[in-house]
Amino acid sequence: MVLDYTQEYKKKTPQSAKIFAKSSKLHVNGVSHNIRFYEPYPFVVKKSSGKNLIDVDNNKYTDYWMGHWSLVLGHGQKNVKDALKKQIEKSWMYGTVNEQTILLSELISKAVPVAEKIRYVTSGTEATMYAVRLARSVTGKKIIAKIDGGWHGYTSDLLKSVNWPFSESESSGIVNEEKIVSIPYNDLEESLVILKKHSNDLAGVIIEPVLGGGGCISADSDYLKGIQEFCKKNNSLFILDEIVTGFRFRYGCLYPTMKLEPDIVTLGKIVGGGMAIGVMCGKKEIMEYADITGKKKSERSYVGGGTFSANPTSMTSGFATLSVLKNNKSIHSTINSLGDYARKELNKVFDGKVIITGKGSLFMTHFVKNGITEITNAAQASKCDTKALHDYHFKMIAHDGIFFLPGKLGAISYAHTKQDIKKMVLASEF
Amino acid sequence: MVLDYTQEYKKKTPQSAKIFAKSSKLHVNGVSHNIRFYEPYPFVVKKSSGKNLIDVDNNKYTDYWMGHWSLVLGHGQKNVKDALKKQIEKSWMYGTVNEQTILLSELISKAVPVAEKIRYVTSGTEATMYAVRLARSVTGKKIIAKIDGGWHGYTSDLLKSVNWPFSESESSGIVNEEKIVSIPYNDLEESLVILKKHSNDLAGVIIEPVLGGGGCISADSDYLKGIQEFCKKNNSLFILDEIVTGFRFRYGCLYPTMKLEPDIVTLGKIVGGGMAIGVMCGKKEIMEYADITGKKKSERSYVGGGTFSANPTSMTSGFATLSVLKNNKSIHSTINSLGDYARKELNKVFDGKVIITGKGSLFMTHFVKNGITEITNAAQASKCDTKALHDYHFKMIAHDGIFFLPGKLGAISYAHTKQDIKKMVLASEF
Repeated sequence: MVLDYTQEYKKKTPQSAKIFAKSSKLHVNGVSHNIRFYEPYPFVVKKSSGKNLIDVDNNKYTDYWMGHWSLVLGHGQKNVKDALKKQIEKSWMYGTVNEQTILLSELISKAVPVAEKIRYVTSGTEATMYAVRLARSVTGKKIIAKIDGGWHGYTSDLLKSVNWPFSESESSGIVNEEKIVSIPYNDLEESLVILKKHSNDLAGVIIEPVLGGGGCISADSDYLKGIQEFCKKNNSLFILDEIVTGFRFRYGCLYPTMKLEPDIVTLGKIVGGGMAIGVMCGKKEIMEYADITGKKKSERSYVGGGTFSANPTSMTSGFATLSVLKNNKSIHSTINSLGDYARKELNKVFDGKVIITGKGSLFMTHFVKNGITEITNAAQASKCDTKALHDYHFKMIAHDGIFFLPGKLGAISYAHTKQDIKKMVLASEF
Repeated sequence: MVLDYTQEYKKKTPQSAKIFAKSSKLHVNGVSHNIRFYEPYPFVVKKSSGKNLIDVDNNKYTDYWMGHWSLVLGHGQKNVKDALKKQIEKSWMYGTVNEQTILLSELISKAVPVAEKIRYVTSGTEATMYAVRLARSVTGKKIIAKIDGGWHGYTSDLLKSVNWPFSESESSGIVNEEKIVSIPYNDLEESLVILKKHSNDLAGVIIEPVLGGGGCISADSDYLKGIQEFCKKNNSLFILDEIVTGFRFRYGCLYPTMKLEPDIVTLGKIVGGGMAIGVMCGKKEIMEYADITGKKKSERSYVGGGTFSANPTSMTSGFATLSVLKNNKSIHSTINSLGDYARKELNKVFDGKVIITGKGSLFMTHFVKNGITEITNAAQASKCDTKALHDYHFKMIAHDGIFFLPGKLGAISYAHTKQDIKKMVLASEF
């Protein structure tokens, strides 16, 4: 199968081939994010609009990657575009306090109960780095627990047990792995055994309520409640990473629907409307450890900040995006339904050959293998036939004008229609 | 002095006071970057243009902060603005490979000889984190040496000996400080003693060729050559952090003028034209450790990447900025001369009370104290009267419509004129 589609792909992407050859000379693997490369070469985008990516050969792809899942309204959404153009007129970098920041924070603080205080940074990687630092500062403890297959960006403080096999280091050149422990998703009993072993020095636990990179897998709310309860009793912080899930399923975070009360929440992606952003927010008494005034250096929690934190373009684009979501409550119900529809129809088409995971507008197709019958954690997802998923996605890129980043979960935006989902389902019949 | 200017400041910034009061409720210290706060409150910017910041009370300030020193062409420069507006029309987030990246990389790789391979990330903090990780991966060693007072962003991997007193931790919640050692700037003998002590496990040394946050202090080229020589002999990497200095003094980096050959260079600020960017670049054989294909997890150097890495707006704004610099070689000589002029005239005005450090368009006024007679490292800068500097800057904000971020170095852009410098010098006579 693969060879044919590779030929078909090459035939329709000669300009991309040319430009990517240049890119390969200038960049390691030709890219600036490992996951953006796939064989024989990724197509090169020249613009995007609504549900579509358009490449330099003028091929149009219905996009389910949607800017690393950040574009919940679709590409180039009009309100956001207009706001950004207006902002660019006023300039794009001040390096100081601006009113756009306050406008965005007012929306976030109302929609996310725990966000009593907010700190903007430049990326999700920075947000989780600071969350971990803050947890260590608040508790005076050192160990951070994360989930097997949990992904919180590339920060050195959380770069462990991301990819299968989880027992093997993620990278050379990491020096603080012994300060990170890992627990199995949705297995409360085993997780508590591990947490108890480290309870004396446990600063906090960080969890995505839906594993993103780890396989688009929802947490049981009982699992999260159990972990939270342990954290509270142990004076460790309970941190939810909602960079993927925040404002994805509803106007606000996922955690209130699960009756959780995290100490810190990290946000990103959707709340920046596609512009560079990371957010750490939390309860006042926790966040104020980041107040450095009048403290000795060694006593403060030194939380950034950065040249681009709270820059006016990211704040504007985030504010415009949340405003659209706020003013049209049917957006979330619409895309959630499209997700339900996609899961149902894909299940029909694949007829037992796959397990479709996901929630609301996020979904992922796992090709069963190794006797896997359910997917409730990243280990099970990793044992599925990831090559089959890659090939399936590549076939749709080459043949059907549909783009998933090969091997990754799909995100439906408000620019997608039921007709689009039907086409995608049809393309899955092969 | 301070009280009067505080009254004057409050009188002209009532809207800022109001808005910042809101900001204080929503954010720790009211800001998203520690250094952006100053007493009684920072003014709130509503737009910027050329050399000016304009606040919500319609006060205009000649800006020497210039977006954390990233805006070498001034605020809202026309070519960059036009390019950004055009890009926004085509959309602002693709999440995939785009041609703008290659255009920017072609410029950088021609202007920066060591940039045989380039990796874009989202911030300077990320760039230095990856540089350190790569050095550890390449050498298999763990210790990183940095400069007393060297600033490379908030990454946990380099958060040590940033602020005076250097012997005290920078923050609670940091777990890998024992893997960072610190050496005194411009003191080769003492630096080599320390490096030799750690030579067996020394992965690399990271240095700014002009200390930015540490006091705007140039490195002696003999010092850097000596450190580089030690690194080469010791099989440790020599990393130059040119996030502040890259494309600041000339079209390219500072290091070729000092006849240095670093293994890795980090860039940011100017090469992003004010949009979010971080860059790690270096020799092919070094950078290719970041190629993760076909390697075991524990053997690869896991270098990002991120949702916003190489996003089309940052790439566009960086390309437009470098294109302007490339096509008008007089820009650098003009702003360098203005810097020389500022240093000369400020020295006259302060008549022995200050030491003006800096290079080209960067300058900083240190009020002498504690018998300091020269400033060649951050310890000397820290012993100067930093309160006097803060008050001097605040007086200019309150009284003269001139903005330096209180206590920080000043940056001249191509939007500044000799007349502006004269005004600033005049405002220094008080």
